[in-house]
Amino acid sequence: MAEFTGLSAFPLTPFKDDAVDERAFVSLIERLADAEVDSITALGSTGSYAFLDPEERAGVARLAVEYAGTTPVFVGVGALRTSHVLANVADAERAGASGVLLAPMTYQPLTHDEVFELFRAVTERTELPVIVYDNPGTTHFSFTVDLYSRIAGLPGIASIKIPAVPADPKRAADHVAAIRAVIPEHVTIGVSGDAFAATGLNAGCDAWYSVIGGTLPDPALAITRAAQQFRADEALAESARLEPLWSLFSEFGGSLRVVAAIAEQLGLAPRRCLPLPIQGLGAADRVRVAEVVDELGLVAELGLNDEPGLHDV
Amino acid sequence: MAEFTGLSAFPLTPFKDDAVDERAFVSLIERLADAEVDSITALGSTGSYAFLDPEERAGVARLAVEYAGTTPVFVGVGALRTSHVLANVADAERAGASGVLLAPMTYQPLTHDEVFELFRAVTERTELPVIVYDNPGTTHFSFTVDLYSRIAGLPGIASIKIPAVPADPKRAADHVAAIRAVIPEHVTIGVSGDAFAATGLNAGCDAWYSVIGGTLPDPALAITRAAQQFRADEALAESARLEPLWSLFSEFGGSLRVVAAIAEQLGLAPRRCLPLPIQGLGAADRVRVAEVVDELGLVAELGLNDEPGLHDV
Repeated sequence: MAEFTGLSAFPLTPFKDDAVDERAFVSLIERLADAEVDSITALGSTGSYAFLDPEERAGVARLAVEYAGTTPVFVGVGALRTSHVLANVADAERAGASGVLLAPMTYQPLTHDEVFELFRAVTERTELPVIVYDNPGTTHFSFTVDLYSRIAGLPGIASIKIPAVPADPKRAADHVAAIRAVIPEHVTIGVSGDAFAATGLNAGCDAWYSVIGGTLPDPALAITRAAQQFRADEALAESARLEPLWSLFSEFGGSLRVVAAIAEQLGLAPRRCLPLPIQGLGAADRVRVAEVVDELGLVAELGLNDEPGLHDV
Repeated sequence: MAEFTGLSAFPLTPFKDDAVDERAFVSLIERLADAEVDSITALGSTGSYAFLDPEERAGVARLAVEYAGTTPVFVGVGALRTSHVLANVADAERAGASGVLLAPMTYQPLTHDEVFELFRAVTERTELPVIVYDNPGTTHFSFTVDLYSRIAGLPGIASIKIPAVPADPKRAADHVAAIRAVIPEHVTIGVSGDAFAATGLNAGCDAWYSVIGGTLPDPALAITRAAQQFRADEALAESARLEPLWSLFSEFGGSLRVVAAIAEQLGLAPRRCLPLPIQGLGAADRVRVAEVVDELGLVAELGLNDEPGLHDV
């Protein structure tokens, strides 16, 4: 489906004093709509969905749709219990979402049949298109290509968000082709794992479900548009330029704390914007992030003045 | 502390039609109190705490305390967000719990400092003793002995629930001694991983945080009392007798689905008593469980008649 292609930007859900900072969240949504991303996915892992209570999640979904204008908004609905997932789906429908994103969250390890039945329960209850969210780093559930195939055959499945593709272009293309071969044509494949997103798009992924796109939409759009227009080398070059950022993701155990630190530094989110117990980066690590932000010219690129804290969030 | 020694039994929280089956839960609690376990831990992993909403958890905690009589009740308070943990602690206090059990649940991986600060936040907010719940199979967080030491030094920490000890008695004793050497004397060490509980108790663990103890208290008490009275071989022999049960745990990916099937077979819980998306065991696997229940004489041992379904739950 056309809506499930291109750049889907995953904004943070900034917290302040253990509550959602609605003003900061709305500013993030407006920035993404202004940047003309192809879609916004609210309440992804980057949006801390697993930490919010149901009322907070419904409120965030409503704000995202309200301030995204004509940009489609997808909403993360994952939860540990099936009935809680279905309640989140109903809230996403009421908010006016264009689709829902579902990760099989686990506490007890789940079987493939249990995950299949979860997706069946959701697709039977909603008319909204469903994105299968394969995020083993947080869910500790491992999909197989066979399970992609079973789930993608359910009516209502629109897209599969796959983890990082192999760095080698040939292996990446083979991996994407192997999935493509066993899912219906209308189901898109979206890559995540920002560091290899250019490789994934060049390898035939239809979409990029992007962490940095939620905070730094312009460089993410540069990569996406280049790949979509078959300027593969340009996409790879822009990704290579951002290598210092990917290195920080790798060094600091993932993208979340780094992107939060960038948003805080740029004045897009309040200090310590992640929900406790997540502390965010320490002072020394934030200096490292600030150096990379400076080195890559991200402040200028964002059209902000270079005095963080003066931005009106 | 004396309360944090011996057999702590972890009952299931049986579900029926996506709601807590309060009658079945109360029967389980009464059985455990009658069997004279040393304590009951409600809302452990076996009690599906992670799947319940806060109101359900508060209700289960109240029922456990109400029907446990003089048996101390500990209550699991884990949640992904610190403020949600603190709300669960307040509910456990109001219910009259004798202690709280806290696992560092994760969605985003947590650092050691973040987990330490979580325990500090809880110990600062409550007078209730806190059990550190190290359950890497569900939380995907790995404690180290050094982190045990830091957390055990917080005022209010009463016990550490450690994962399965090594099967080799000498290695098990070394492991327990290494922990014992770096934690305050008043903090007890409790073993989990039922298959090696006898080994753990013989190796110097003060307590057994027991899955089977929540459904089959008598054999769990036999092991515990033998070990406490330094009849090490007798504890090992009783554990060896239960080997077919441990084999099922291993074969079916953990203890939860097997114990639920046993409780269902014995009429202690309604059919399909686990919260969806967990399906429980399939029909063929249940036959295997029934054979083991029969082989081990668990029906007779429970003092139930041998016609499952006639028990008044």
